[in-house]
Amino acid sequence: MPPRRVIGIDAGGTKLLGGVVDQELVVHHRVRRQWRGADRQETLDIFVDAVEEVRAAAPDVDAVGFGLPALVEAETGVSTWSNHLPIDGVPFRDLLSERLGLPVVVDNDANAAVLAEHRHGAARGADHAVLVALGTGIGGGLILGGRLYRGARGFGGELGHMVVDHDGEDCPGDCPGRGCLEVLASGTAIGRAGEAAAAEEPDSTLGRRLAGGGEITGGLVTELAHDGDEQSREVLAGVGERLGAGLTGLVNTLDPEVVVVGGGAGAAGELLLAPARAVVAKRALPPIAELVRIVPTHFGVESGMLGAALIALEEA
Amino acid sequence: MPPRRVIGIDAGGTKLLGGVVDQELVVHHRVRRQWRGADRQETLDIFVDAVEEVRAAAPDVDAVGFGLPALVEAETGVSTWSNHLPIDGVPFRDLLSERLGLPVVVDNDANAAVLAEHRHGAARGADHAVLVALGTGIGGGLILGGRLYRGARGFGGELGHMVVDHDGEDCPGDCPGRGCLEVLASGTAIGRAGEAAAAEEPDSTLGRRLAGGGEITGGLVTELAHDGDEQSREVLAGVGERLGAGLTGLVNTLDPEVVVVGGGAGAAGELLLAPARAVVAKRALPPIAELVRIVPTHFGVESGMLGAALIALEEA
Repeated sequence: MPPRRVIGIDAGGTKLLGGVVDQELVVHHRVRRQWRGADRQETLDIFVDAVEEVRAAAPDVDAVGFGLPALVEAETGVSTWSNHLPIDGVPFRDLLSERLGLPVVVDNDANAAVLAEHRHGAARGADHAVLVALGTGIGGGLILGGRLYRGARGFGGELGHMVVDHDGEDCPGDCPGRGCLEVLASGTAIGRAGEAAAAEEPDSTLGRRLAGGGEITGGLVTELAHDGDEQSREVLAGVGERLGAGLTGLVNTLDPEVVVVGGGAGAAGELLLAPARAVVAKRALPPIAELVRIVPTHFGVESGMLGAALIALEEA
Repeated sequence: MPPRRVIGIDAGGTKLLGGVVDQELVVHHRVRRQWRGADRQETLDIFVDAVEEVRAAAPDVDAVGFGLPALVEAETGVSTWSNHLPIDGVPFRDLLSERLGLPVVVDNDANAAVLAEHRHGAARGADHAVLVALGTGIGGGLILGGRLYRGARGFGGELGHMVVDHDGEDCPGDCPGRGCLEVLASGTAIGRAGEAAAAEEPDSTLGRRLAGGGEITGGLVTELAHDGDEQSREVLAGVGERLGAGLTGLVNTLDPEVVVVGGGAGAAGELLLAPARAVVAKRALPPIAELVRIVPTHFGVESGMLGAALIALEEA
């Protein structure tokens, strides 16, 4: 009998990544989409379209798991609130199940990611693990006492909205907060910090790019930093230190064995992680700092997709 | 058969409160001590002395529970690290059990407090509850999924060391952090904010007190605020807002039903809680803010003592 296969869809603030995933977590077909300012109906159509694309290649799939950048009500599968997509109040599970004619499970994107990393990745064997996914925003997922932690209604783990600068800047998107970690250490924040650095030094590589009308994104800063650009490395180090401040409070709160850092901005690797790790080592309560490991994801940007598939395999 | 009775001891950063507690949580005898700069040996002697005092009045007690302002290793009962008392590395459970000739259980002070509030107090019925104890420092305790959350080794729940001002002031005591909640919203922080306000307005009640050589403590500010002193009320409101910023990140992280605010500075009541509640209502992710209640302790400053007794009743 061939292994059972499902579709896992990871939706971020900017793009969607999906695939056909089997019980061994092998990915057979991948699909990508970008939202590009889609409204609610268009966004839902893109989800359906992405699923249908991979389903055409794998008609044997028997369920779909979605990870959404949203507060997902655990019991109902309703996307209650999202800082990034126009899907507030959408009864996502029931709606997509009806449109697709398949069993559907829905969870928060970073919940899915931490599950994959806990079962088979960088947090394997840890009973207490934290994942932060640095992308357009910052998602978070918690494994506490060996299990996915959801909070009272499934809204827990919004680590991008820990307040690390109590009198700080307004959080972007629909979050009514200020000084959230998402303001300081997301992929978007890397781009903003890069832009500020570019404006300060017009003769630098970043500065010339900005002067030439180019957009300074987190991806560009990361690419230049990997190529050895000192200013871009400093930008990443500064963001890494702010990430470290947020993680310091988090590890003091949860005493986890491991913090896994993923998301698109995870591509910065040690250029971001080493400064974050140094801040935690210096500033967290010493017996907590001593234990905790801060590591990259095992599955890279695919943690969320694999986790969504895992939830579908287990719950659908 | 008379109900079983134990001794509960709650040790804070400045003082100790203990009592004989029966299975109905009735307190029969109370004892109080202050540390006043005691060194390690003196501190341990004060613990023993306090227990012996109440034991003399209740020779039938059969166990002692201690809540310590320390990271307590869950399995061994070792006080691994404390920001406030010189008891780092003390094998507290075994040492006190030997000196007292009684079974002893040891836990973090705020873990004890949240347990009492969860079982019989302000967090009753909540599966996800948070307690912050505002005193000399800030202690924290978590009930997650209906159970006391300890983290990987018992060090979890150090909510006073969430970072809410990533580039902020050094945390007092032995914490190597900066901008911890403890810097901004403890009883000590109320005193410091009061002193700053006094220095700014020498003609105010606080100002005259300071000019006269009096110490501006959190307790004094709270007392004056309750008496209607506007400046003291503003001081409490400012601290309450900073507390609210910290709680905003915490509720976004954990999606709890209830946050219980206790400790000595809980005496400020609504003068502190109302501004904190307003900040959470405004700045937390809306579906999370909508659910969460922010309330005072049911047992006031006795939560920790009762919780320590509960742990002794259940585990010793």
